[in-house]
Amino acid sequence: MIKPLFFKDNILYILDQRELPFKETYIKCKTYSDVIYCIKNMVIRGAPAIGIAGGYGVLLAVKEAKSNRIKNFIKKVKKLLLSTRPTAYNLFYVVDRLTKKIFESPVSSKSILYKITLKELNKIIQENRKALFKIVKEGVKLIEKNSNVLTHCNTGVLACVDYGTALGIIIEAYKKRKINLVYVDETRPLLQGARLTVYELARSKVPYCLITDNMAAYLMQNNLIDCIIVGADRIANNGDTANKIGTYNLAVLASYHKIPFYVAAPFSTIDTKISCGKEINIEFRNENELKYIRKKLITFEDAKVLNPSFDITPAELITAIITERGIYRYPYDFSRF
Amino acid sequence: MIKPLFFKDNILYILDQRELPFKETYIKCKTYSDVIYCIKNMVIRGAPAIGIAGGYGVLLAVKEAKSNRIKNFIKKVKKLLLSTRPTAYNLFYVVDRLTKKIFESPVSSKSILYKITLKELNKIIQENRKALFKIVKEGVKLIEKNSNVLTHCNTGVLACVDYGTALGIIIEAYKKRKINLVYVDETRPLLQGARLTVYELARSKVPYCLITDNMAAYLMQNNLIDCIIVGADRIANNGDTANKIGTYNLAVLASYHKIPFYVAAPFSTIDTKISCGKEINIEFRNENELKYIRKKLITFEDAKVLNPSFDITPAELITAIITERGIYRYPYDFSRF
Repeated sequence: MIKPLFFKDNILYILDQRELPFKETYIKCKTYSDVIYCIKNMVIRGAPAIGIAGGYGVLLAVKEAKSNRIKNFIKKVKKLLLSTRPTAYNLFYVVDRLTKKIFESPVSSKSILYKITLKELNKIIQENRKALFKIVKEGVKLIEKNSNVLTHCNTGVLACVDYGTALGIIIEAYKKRKINLVYVDETRPLLQGARLTVYELARSKVPYCLITDNMAAYLMQNNLIDCIIVGADRIANNGDTANKIGTYNLAVLASYHKIPFYVAAPFSTIDTKISCGKEINIEFRNENELKYIRKKLITFEDAKVLNPSFDITPAELITAIITERGIYRYPYDFSRF
Repeated sequence: MIKPLFFKDNILYILDQRELPFKETYIKCKTYSDVIYCIKNMVIRGAPAIGIAGGYGVLLAVKEAKSNRIKNFIKKVKKLLLSTRPTAYNLFYVVDRLTKKIFESPVSSKSILYKITLKELNKIIQENRKALFKIVKEGVKLIEKNSNVLTHCNTGVLACVDYGTALGIIIEAYKKRKINLVYVDETRPLLQGARLTVYELARSKVPYCLITDNMAAYLMQNNLIDCIIVGADRIANNGDTANKIGTYNLAVLASYHKIPFYVAAPFSTIDTKISCGKEINIEFRNENELKYIRKKLITFEDAKVLNPSFDITPAELITAIITERGIYRYPYDFSRF
């Protein structure tokens, strides 16, 4: 089993996904700042995994805090943690839930607050695990026999700590003999498809074929794709979905070619406070992510580039959203549930 | 002025575009085999440029031939040249035209056949130059003031020897103050956008912004693209267009977002013998083009990949085809002209 993170003797070990599939090394996080570094620099990525890593950030902060001003310290750390990656909602969900427990607690003893935080975090991790298990179970129902599936970015164990969302469904559907071949978008700029999804599929012995992102349309035109499944970083109340840049592209192509387009995500990805996608904050990342591939410059060093990390897929292009509470179809209104 | 090739003292010098924009080095071609190597390995690429390079391949072959069996030798070389890159039509156009001159000539003197070939090749080069000049002039008319334009792959001087097709239009439209900003698809796998188009735009001082191929949809959704212009490798009689992989993707996106989608190409790209795109032979290239970027492995060495070099855009998605004979609109029927 791949473990994107584990906690042992008060140290959070985070698998350095930037180096996969070439090296499997863990970065030791002894402080909340170490966790912030790992989230910011995408040592760990994937909305559910970021959420849990952020949770450990809060836990480490409780440990680091001075006994007499622990709640103020946590307030500051919360702000820092939430500013690491603005789009993925699970981080907000987990950090909000843990800090609320701390702020609402009448006690101010560090050791008790640590226990309270750890207990709540373990509860979140269990809930996440159960939710993903259920998502996989629900999602597999949507896959027709003999399907060729296309996916984008990485949504497996590496992104979710357990099972995975879209990739979890794909791997389970393959085991149930429903899938022939998985087409994997390489997912520029950071190549999560070429590096991480291929890594997980190869480990699970699922037949795959890696393509560049611009080949997906060609495959659909030639009837080589039966459905598309992706994950989500934040889902608005109406179903508009922020996910890795390139997702909206696939949704438009799927609509044009009349191919089902599924989003799989736990409820902790759904931000019901946000009515639609326009309100989702899109993260723009460093230009060097685009200009360098594995430290090799691919254009002029001073080339002008744009690097939006996510895009918004409007709800009407999403055939179904697969969650642990069941499968939802357009029009979506998650505040009802 | 960039020169993708020049002929001097019976040697064809070809700029090694694989090394751009990092190094500007020329490969010396003394034999037709050298030219075949350069075309096959994409030292030179771009349909019109491949055509002219192929023409020099024929010329060098005439020089290499044994005097007594020159026409048989040229027959063999023709076959080899045409098998280098099966999709780009200009290569077929030029090689056919030159070898026809040779085969139809009543003489068998090597020096006379050499002169005949050189004369015809120079005529082709002049025609190409005039055609491109006219395409640029026609194409600029289609660009509205204050446009943000998106282009794919490289269609400038590097691809065409003179002026360029789509990129020629863009640069000229910028000079005429019609263009604000040029968005450049990096164009995986071989990054012709990031390496070559950025190189040409920077040299011409045209403001540009480099994106990964999967960001185009995001830009269109946010109203940042006013039109798309691309080149072509082969156009069927009905207007179906083979061009660099990813072009069809853009055409679907353009149609969905109601953005004009233009193809610019000389008539020597139009294969009227072919009624529609289904008959166009798509080249599949080596898997390593995808797995390695600038010699750096980006996935498992034994990863399964697919590498179609082109895709077919159906004519109905093309707003207009810009040629030296004018601007054509759907439905197309080039055999009439």
